[in-house]
Order: sequence, then structure tokens, then C-alpha cells
Amino acid sequence: MADRLIYLPLGGAGEIGMNAYVYGYGQPGRERLILVDLGVTFGDMDSSPGIDLIMPDLRWLEANRDRLEAVFITHGHEDHVGALGLMWNRLKVPVYCRKFTGALARLKMEEHGQPLDQLKIVTARPAVIEAGPFRVQFVPVSHSIPESAALVIDSPAGRIVHSGDFKLDGTPIVGEAFDPILWHDIAREGRGIKVLTCDSTNVFSPNPGRSEAVLANPLLDFVMAQKQMVVATTFASNVARLKTLADAGVAAGRQVCLLGRAMRRMITAAVETGILTNFPNTISPEQAANLPRGQVMLIVTGSQGERRAASAQLARGRYLGLELKEGDSFLFSSRTIPGNERPVIRIMNGLSEKGVNLFDAEDGTFHVSGHANRPDLEAVHDLLKPQILIPMHGEHMHLREHMMLGRAKGIQSMVVTNGTMVDLTGDAPRVVDQVDTGRVYLDGTVLIGAMDGVVRDRIRMALNGHAMVNVIIDEDERPLPDAWVETMGLPAQGRTRAPLDQQIEAELAEFLERADPRTIADDAKLEEAIRKITRQVTMEEIGKKPEVTVVISRLAAE
Amino acid sequence: MADRLIYLPLGGAGEIGMNAYVYGYGQPGRERLILVDLGVTFGDMDSSPGIDLIMPDLRWLEANRDRLEAVFITHGHEDHVGALGLMWNRLKVPVYCRKFTGALARLKMEEHGQPLDQLKIVTARPAVIEAGPFRVQFVPVSHSIPESAALVIDSPAGRIVHSGDFKLDGTPIVGEAFDPILWHDIAREGRGIKVLTCDSTNVFSPNPGRSEAVLANPLLDFVMAQKQMVVATTFASNVARLKTLADAGVAAGRQVCLLGRAMRRMITAAVETGILTNFPNTISPEQAANLPRGQVMLIVTGSQGERRAASAQLARGRYLGLELKEGDSFLFSSRTIPGNERPVIRIMNGLSEKGVNLFDAEDGTFHVSGHANRPDLEAVHDLLKPQILIPMHGEHMHLREHMMLGRAKGIQSMVVTNGTMVDLTGDAPRVVDQVDTGRVYLDGTVLIGAMDGVVRDRIRMALNGHAMVNVIIDEDERPLPDAWVETMGLPAQGRTRAPLDQQIEAELAEFLERADPRTIADDAKLEEAIRKITRQVTMEEIGKKPEVTVVISRLAAE
Repeated sequence: MADRLIYLPLGGAGEIGMNAYVYGYGQPGRERLILVDLGVTFGDMDSSPGIDLIMPDLRWLEANRDRLEAVFITHGHEDHVGALGLMWNRLKVPVYCRKFTGALARLKMEEHGQPLDQLKIVTARPAVIEAGPFRVQFVPVSHSIPESAALVIDSPAGRIVHSGDFKLDGTPIVGEAFDPILWHDIAREGRGIKVLTCDSTNVFSPNPGRSEAVLANPLLDFVMAQKQMVVATTFASNVARLKTLADAGVAAGRQVCLLGRAMRRMITAAVETGILTNFPNTISPEQAANLPRGQVMLIVTGSQGERRAASAQLARGRYLGLELKEGDSFLFSSRTIPGNERPVIRIMNGLSEKGVNLFDAEDGTFHVSGHANRPDLEAVHDLLKPQILIPMHGEHMHLREHMMLGRAKGIQSMVVTNGTMVDLTGDAPRVVDQVDTGRVYLDGTVLIGAMDGVVRDRIRMALNGHAMVNVIIDEDERPLPDAWVETMGLPAQGRTRAPLDQQIEAELAEFLERADPRTIADDAKLEEAIRKITRQVTMEEIGKKPEVTVVISRLAAE
Repeated sequence: MADRLIYLPLGGAGEIGMNAYVYGYGQPGRERLILVDLGVTFGDMDSSPGIDLIMPDLRWLEANRDRLEAVFITHGHEDHVGALGLMWNRLKVPVYCRKFTGALARLKMEEHGQPLDQLKIVTARPAVIEAGPFRVQFVPVSHSIPESAALVIDSPAGRIVHSGDFKLDGTPIVGEAFDPILWHDIAREGRGIKVLTCDSTNVFSPNPGRSEAVLANPLLDFVMAQKQMVVATTFASNVARLKTLADAGVAAGRQVCLLGRAMRRMITAAVETGILTNFPNTISPEQAANLPRGQVMLIVTGSQGERRAASAQLARGRYLGLELKEGDSFLFSSRTIPGNERPVIRIMNGLSEKGVNLFDAEDGTFHVSGHANRPDLEAVHDLLKPQILIPMHGEHMHLREHMMLGRAKGIQSMVVTNGTMVDLTGDAPRVVDQVDTGRVYLDGTVLIGAMDGVVRDRIRMALNGHAMVNVIIDEDERPLPDAWVETMGLPAQGRTRAPLDQQIEAELAEFLERADPRTIADDAKLEEAIRKITRQVTMEEIGKKPEVTVVISRLAAE
């Protein structure tokens, strides 16, 4: 059989988050593999209540670990590096990334006691990392975090460009610009680009993207125009934005104070790795509290409404000695990621109650996106002229739209979602396998499968409430006369105005009195009958059927 | 003491939803009262899991029911009329509204067995309803449902205009246009307008609003351009939009099929009350399924992602014999209400997986709002020249922004949120009382208070899981050796890889063995100790503390 080049996304294809993309080359079923990125996504109350983090299910990769050569991390965003600490010991192979990304990856590895010597810091092209049949180069692209990289992956079947997250920014303030000449060269070396695996996030944004640099003047004008305290929030990892904001504050004659651990950690990593220079001096919250309000600018975390971040704390009340007041100004230099609207609006209303003037980036004046828009994607297709386009980093609708964009230019393209393995060796992608994949949840300190039923039970309890019934069967196989019922998350009373638990108890007592001894003797039958009665009574009383847990204690049994 | 004019919002002021506004006139504490609107709002998984509807807490109004003259309903949207059926029997006074609104209100009253003769259908100005010291006129305004009305409320202290929900639309397709001449007259009668209580929903929208009529041509062009089946969704109550969509379908040579009960009910009410004429003939789903795809247009419910509505069903699979296919087109002729993004996106991705082409109204081509934008609000301020402006129908940030807009014109204005009673008799509003208010939840068939703890317990179970412990104390006051533990919504095992429930049982058994007889004898103490141990073990094993229910059965006790 001929060697083949395969692609298998395990996360990030069909969703925005938890990126994890596998490439392989070799004999079918024995390809040598590399993994690009290992990220997390975040849960929500609708579908994953109580879950701290969500990661790709790496079952397939674990089962084929002997074939895995290395992991490559394109950049330091949580959805690309966030699962490294929790998941590395399932893979146990070297992890390659550039310096700043490495500083962030190191924190993840340390936090979970993973061996730091497995983290290999490498430089950008022309440096080449050999990984089995692959030769990999990190190529700088612009994004909303410094040092984002695309990967140029050479295989015997041809050259792959894995775009990572990127935008076309010639003046990104911090970090490297997108360099079309460099990419022109990459596209023309050897046989050109066989496959472009490409960011699809902004495929529905019709206008060309704008540079980070266009924000400097509007932000300066904004800060200059405010009279009292100025607060600005943005993504903690957007180091360029933090610098632009801080520069604007200083130019407007204010002292700058950073609030929020994530933001300070990011600035520290950027300064220590030499990515960030000339960041203005900052003051402590105590110092900020003691200055006249018109001389202070706070730059704070929590632009997505995170409950414990600085923005939410300031909206609720005092935070580290600082309190917002009538006439202060609060700027969201960020967009709200779909799904986060409710908590962001909650913060806005909290600030409004304090008399704070609100400014958002809805009209684009105070925020630019970190992803390539539709015309930018087209420009990249034209620049790289790939034979095959694989849309990634998007929900299904983004991937499909991106595919159609490519096809309209005559490029072979296919929507490949998580778990679908395609063969890229020929002129067009071909589906060759479907592997088990899915999501793994971090719940407290435990990793559980999304399909384990734990979260399903939580959602059911949240929607339906929970009734617990406790029945004691005595030494003579007779039920003690009283069944004991406790409810949680259910109204105390319903139709008849009698306490719900007592209503259920009365019905169960009646049932137990006349129940067939064979039912009493059979745990499963008895439990089923009790559950049914409990749900019936509750339905009659309050119009809904709760989750029911039945505990049968047999005094004779042990 | 002098008579006074008071205003007291019980819902809708500080939120968008569940409108309920009280006006009163008379001796302080003995004012005769009227209620304007009685609406619902909808729950969400984040803050009210399992809750079917949310209504204003009318406690204060019930306690003062002898002073209440009547309820006035401005229009038929759920957030203005939705609580009438469930709440009328707490008030038991006549309900006034116009014909179409009345047809919808009647359904609410019928559903909950309320006396239909209490529903009084009235005509618009110049008709006047006398209600104690108030003389009330319904004045047509344009909105996104037919027959929306503002109220002109005359009191001995002066004239109030309660705007209801409105926009400035001279060509609303269905229903009445906004008539500036009429409002000019109203503003100049007698002593002019003392108070304008005004819709604030779109105060942050900077451009003048657009008429429903501007959509006709773009929608026709859209339908003409599609080759296969066309599906369009919008708000079921937007009768004008339904007509524009259906007209576009017919003009493009298609047969139109309405899918979704709410939509058919709305069309029926509009036809029966004479509001809607010339609505095209529609076909049944069976007929639609038997026509070539290019000859069919479906108009469907579920624009906000509602799980059981037609849009969601079509995104998941077959619905009433109809199934969407590659090349069909699906249009959202609606905007997504903040907070509904996740379910709407889920539908879009489901459709994308079927190969359906998606079109939304994000750029405004296929949707216009039903509320007055910022310049429209200014135009109304200028037209009515009120002495006092009370912003309503908005979250805090909307109310505050609207207040500032009014103040900039020299109008007295104040943010008055739910539960705050203001005296409007003087030149400016003055806070005179703060009354207990809040939310009432419909849970199944039961009304519960938002603060009753039911929903709090559900949220806690969803976030933390639930452990149930069952302990039996024998006739000699000694615990039986085994405590029985069941868990729900918790991982089966954690750190030690032993089953979590068994780990807890082992710790509890050890505790019970050495426990002080005085602890064993005391239900409260024993329960507390068991809860603490259960949470400790779980914390060690899985890193989180569950909700714990302890049931102690005493064999001797009874």
C-alpha cells in the first residue's frame, strides 16, 4: 500500500474552542503523527453546569501514542494551549513552541506537575523541527496575542500550511506583522502549497479587517475626553491592546493601574520574553485609590463578564479599595463572545446603577478583531494558492461558508469536523475513517467524559428538582410504615396546599401497606414502583416530574 | 394633606420584560390606582432553571386591591399581557384593551378560567374610559404587533402619556401609522403633557428607525433569488412581517405554508378582528411536502431558538413531513434578543450540517426594530414637550441613558426602577416610598416566589451535584453500622479511584462507630456532622463540595 497523508481534527472543527488537529504520514493505520495545539473551551450553565473546563477527548491519540512524534502549539490562547497541563501525561511527547507561548505553556505544565524539559522552545523559520516524516517551521503571523504562528509542515506528500489563528495586520503594535512577501516565498518554494488548513472564525465578516494600530488615536481621544476615573477592559492576552490603552492613559496625563491576575501575568510573560518593551510604569490599587479620580486609569480583566474578574467586582462594589462613582467612565475595548451577553449586560447595569458612563466597541471604534475577515481569507487563498483548502477553527456554519468561498475559486475543499479522518494525498480530500471523539470535562479535580451522565443528571435536577425516598424493610420483609421523603429544588406545596413531601409520603405509605410481598422482596421492582408513585403525586400536585432517588434499607439483609 | 399623583413600576423598569406600571391619584396612602400592562418574562438556565414563566410580584397591589380601579393593556405582546391569565384573580378588576389585543388577552383569560366578562374591549381615542380619578384614552402607535397603543391618562394633577412600546412608522403595512399631527394635538390640549412615561429599549441605537415598509423589496428580491425551498422565520406576533414575507413568496411564484401554532393563532386573531386583510392563501405542510421545492416558501416560528418551535425542529430533522435539504435557503427575518445567541447559533449549525444556505438580518436588510431609536425618542420629546420624563421598558443602563437624553433638553427626569414609588405632583419627580416587589415564578403549575429558595437549590445541585446520606438509628439509640450514600450529578470516582459513594460510606461508618451518644441522639447535630464529613471526603476525592441531604431514620422513635 502507498503511504498517505492524513488529517484528523479532534477539537476545533465544528466549534470555536479546544483546538486539537492531528496530521499523519505513512502506511495506512501506521502513519507517524503530530498534534497541532491542545486547547480548552469553557462550559456554560445551559449545557455543562458546574464544569470548570472542557477539553478534547484524546482517546484515539492515546491508543496510538506510540505513533505520536510531537505536539506543536501555535500560540498562547487558552483554546490552543489550555489543555496542555491536564492532558500532557496522556501523550508524553515533546511539545514545541516559540518563546512567549512557551512562557505560558510552562505555567500550564508546572501547575499540573508535568516535566518541564518536555517543553522545547524553538525559533521561527528558517528553523526547522524534524518530527518523524514531517519537517515543521513556525512562521510568524499577526493575531490578538503576541507571537502567534502558522505552521509550515512539509511531508513527503507535499507542503501543508496550518494557519493557526491569524489576521492580516501590518502594524500590530506588539509582536510581528503579517508579512505577505514571506508568505509569497513560502507558497513558491518547491511544489507550492498542497494543503491550507485555515482559520474560519470571521468568514461571515464582509469587510477587510483593520489593524490594531487604528485604535491608538480613538482610544487617546476617548481617555482625553473623560473627566473622572477611566476604566477600560479587554482580553487579558491582548498585549498590544493593553499597551495601546496604557499609552493612551499616560498620554492623557493619567497614572495607569492594572487590575486582574491574568492581565498582570500576561504582561510579565511578555516583558520577560522580550516581546513587550516600553510598557508604561503602573501603580498599585492602593496608590490609585489615593489619587484624584481624574488622574487615574484602570485597565481591568473581565471583558466577557467573568464573575470573579475585576470588571464584575467593580460593578458589584468595592474591589481592592477602589470603588466606581457617578461620572466615572467604563470602556469595553472588546467584543462580547456569543453566549456571554447575559453576564456582560449584568455588569453594564451594575455600573449604570453606580452612575458610571458606559462605552462599548459595538461600532468598531474601540476594538478590532484578531481574525482574518472574509476578504482577508480570500487574499490568503490567492497568495498561497493551495491545492486543497481545509477550513478549521469554526462552527459548522463557518467551515461550510469557508469551503464555499474556496470552491468558488476552484480550490478543492471539504468540511471536515471533529473525528473525521481524511486522506489528503490525492488531488482532493477523501474521508477514510471516523474515530471516536468528543469532550472531556474537568469537574473540580476530576476528568469525566461528557457522556458519563454526570452533567445530564445535573441538568435534570436543575430543570425538574430532586425527590429522595427512603424506605426501610424490616427483618420480616415488611416495610416499616413510614416512607421518608425529602425534596430539593421543588416547591414546598402545590394544588392541595398540603406539604408536597407529606403528600408523597401518604401515597407511598398506602402503597407499601397493600404491596405484593414479591414486589417488596425485589429491590428493582420496589424502586420502580416507588419512583412511579412519587412522580405521579408530584405531577398532580405541582405539574412536573422530578428526578427521584430511592434508597431501600433492609434491616435483615446484612 | 394635598392629593398627589404617584407612579410605581412593579415590573419592566430595570429590565426588558414583565411590564407592570401603577399610577395613583388621591390622598397619600389612599390614592385610587390603575395598572398598565401585566406581562411575563422568560427564564433561563443561568438564573431560573426549570421555570416556565416569570411574572411581577403583585403583593403590594393585592394588599391595596380595594384601591385598584382597572387594568389597561397597551398591546398583545407576552411581556405586556402574558401574566393576565395567571394573575387576574389576585386583582379582580376590569381589564381594558382594544380589539386585537383583546382577542389575545381572551385566550389568556380562558386558559386559566378567568371570567371573560371582565375583559372590556374599547375603541381608540376619542373614546374615554373613566377609572376613578383617571380618564384614559387609547391612542394608536406603530410597533411590531398590530394595534399597539399609548395611553393618554388625564388626572387632576395633569396629563400623563404612557407611551407603551412604539416606533415612528408612517407605513407599518398592518395596523396604524404613527400620527404626529394627532400627537401634536394631544400635547397642546389643556395644560399640555405633565409626564411622559416612555419606552427606552432602543435608546442606544444611534440612527433613526426604519419603516416596516422598507423590507418589502429586499425580501421580494431575496425570495426571487433562491432556487430551492425558502424558509423564513420571524416573531410570530409580527403580523406585518408575516404579511410582507407571504406577499414576497406569492409574488415570487411560490405557495406559502405557515408552520408553528403561535403564528397561525396570531394570523387567525388578526383576520378575525379585521386587522389583517388580503393575507395570501396558505397551504398545509402535507401539500408543501408534495410540491417541487422551488415552489414552496415556509414561514416558521422559532426565530429566538426556542427548542420546540418549527425552526429548531427543522434544524434537527424532519418536521410535519418536511425536511430541509442541500441548497435550501433559511432566512432569519429577526434579530436575536440578547441571551438567546446560543440556541440560535445551534439552529444555524444544524441547518448548515444539512447544507442549507443561511441568511440573517445582521446588516438590517431583512429586519427592522419595533422600538423608537434614540433620534426618534428625541423627536417624541420635542413633539410632546413633557414637563417630566420617566424612562421605562429598559434595563438600568437604558433608563439612565434615556434620562440623560431628556435632561440634556432641560426636561425633568429620573430613573425609577421596580418598587420605587415617586410623587409626580410637583415640578419634578420625588421618591416617596419603596415597596416590596420582585418576581414570581411559574414552575409547572405552581407559582413560587423567586426568593423561596427552590431555584437557588436547583442551581446549587446543577453546579455542585447532590449527595444523599441515609442513616438508621436502632431502638437502642445506636446507629446501624452502614450509612448508605447515593450521589447524583457527581463523578463516580476521584483521586483514589475507589467509588466515591463507598469512600463516603467508609468515612461515615468510622465516624458513627466512635460518635458521642449525645451527637447520635440529636438530629441537628448528627446531620451537621454527617454533612461536614460528606463534603470533606468529596472535596478530597473530586475537588468539589456537593449539596448534601441527610435522612436520619430512628427505629425506636415512632
